[in-house]
Amino acid sequence: MARVERVAIVGVGLIGGSLALAARAAGLVGEVVGIGRSEANLAVARQRGIIDRSVRDPADLGPVDLVVLAVPVRSTAAAARALLPHLRPGTLLTDAGSVKATVVAEMEALLSPGLPFVGAHPIAGSEQAGAAAARADLFQGARCILTPTPRTDAAALRTVRELWEGVGARVDDMDAVAHDAALAWVSHLPHAIAYALVGALARSGAEAVALGGASWRDATRVAASPPELWRDIFLANRDAVLAATDAFAAELARLRAAVAGGDGAALEALLTHATAARRRGGDDRP
Amino acid sequence: MARVERVAIVGVGLIGGSLALAARAAGLVGEVVGIGRSEANLAVARQRGIIDRSVRDPADLGPVDLVVLAVPVRSTAAAARALLPHLRPGTLLTDAGSVKATVVAEMEALLSPGLPFVGAHPIAGSEQAGAAAARADLFQGARCILTPTPRTDAAALRTVRELWEGVGARVDDMDAVAHDAALAWVSHLPHAIAYALVGALARSGAEAVALGGASWRDATRVAASPPELWRDIFLANRDAVLAATDAFAAELARLRAAVAGGDGAALEALLTHATAARRRGGDDRP
Repeated sequence: MARVERVAIVGVGLIGGSLALAARAAGLVGEVVGIGRSEANLAVARQRGIIDRSVRDPADLGPVDLVVLAVPVRSTAAAARALLPHLRPGTLLTDAGSVKATVVAEMEALLSPGLPFVGAHPIAGSEQAGAAAARADLFQGARCILTPTPRTDAAALRTVRELWEGVGARVDDMDAVAHDAALAWVSHLPHAIAYALVGALARSGAEAVALGGASWRDATRVAASPPELWRDIFLANRDAVLAATDAFAAELARLRAAVAGGDGAALEALLTHATAARRRGGDDRP
Repeated sequence: MARVERVAIVGVGLIGGSLALAARAAGLVGEVVGIGRSEANLAVARQRGIIDRSVRDPADLGPVDLVVLAVPVRSTAAAARALLPHLRPGTLLTDAGSVKATVVAEMEALLSPGLPFVGAHPIAGSEQAGAAAARADLFQGARCILTPTPRTDAAALRTVRELWEGVGARVDDMDAVAHDAALAWVSHLPHAIAYALVGALARSGAEAVALGGASWRDATRVAASPPELWRDIFLANRDAVLAATDAFAAELARLRAAVAGGDGAALEALLTHATAARRRGGDDRP
């Protein structure tokens, strides 16, 4: 890609910080300016060389060519709105949020044609947060989904694609609604389940965690993820999250009924169906 | 521990096979005889040096000092019953099942005082199965819970403890009912959830798996576990599994209600409660 001279990263957390590190390492960007709420986090980002400088007031940003919005999804439009008076025409905006339909609609309603926007979602991350957790290799081999609309500027789409490819991601375009429906299943619901599992055990008062092995660790890892991020994701993708949650709860109720009724054949059939599906999924890594 | 000259492993799968490999590597046992239903699996066990020989008919076993029952939990007592006519007085029996109260009660009802039994549960494993998956290091650093009762022979308990310590496990004694209640939370329910999650997605027909990242992989890994094993575990620990499942479903319903109602404050409170509990759990490994 053509090098982007001046980049603003709004929200220098795990995702925004990792993108900055990776893009710098690949020589894709020049100056990187960080914008965020936490001066402590911005100081970490400066110390780690993730950003060159940071600003708290958008008026101090100066001219930039690319703005990456890497804040909780329900703050994306508000963060863009605060920057708008200070952006030159032609500044490219993109995001990195886990929910796309609502964010893309908000951004397209907000921005004039002179400020192109491309919705993006790198499917990478961990339960860790903040500039301290950023890693230059976070996106190596990860999928990144772009969600262009009929309004999306072709050159802007190409630039964002090349940026994510340049940091090692496998980039595909998808419809935003289809993206959100799929992610509700493979990411948002698994997070809701992990939070509910840990929350239920804590509420029960049972002293069990010390006996947890690998299955407990894996089932609950993402329950350490930042609540604010996930509150926003669940609410921004409300309908798809509810649909997946209800389908999961119905399947768990089927398992429960077979256990309660001592119906070994029905239970084994449900488990076999799931095992076969998991194996078809093609990921048999231990 | 004093070396055990002749050991029979009933069920040379991941757990039985790994115990045999580890005990041989540590010089804890002499001859190891495998008993199982699948000649193909026993052939793998012989080829890998997990066992010295295998028998299909218990009458061919010959004298042994220790019998390790490593079969699905609801087959444990039946497997012991088939061996009984061929065991000398003083033969020590133990198991490795994930459910203890029902198994221990069945075994104590079955065995005469001359055939001591010690219930054991090494908290280790994976979604893989069979002698091909056995590993000499499976129990290194793992917990192993023994569930002695007032009837348990002290010398037998000591031998089984030393066996598991000898293969690297951290061994503790627990009441069988308390063990089962705890394991329902940290192992049995997580497995039920993984099966239900994969099963629900397969039933929905949604094309989402290709977009799954680390959270999907971790949430569903154990859904590749053998259905027969887990059918038995869920049924043998029925009441504790139902109680944990209901508590989890109630917590998930709380999350769902907050999402459905768009109640960001309630949602964030639930997530924060869970995150804090996960962190208190002390396992912050990524």
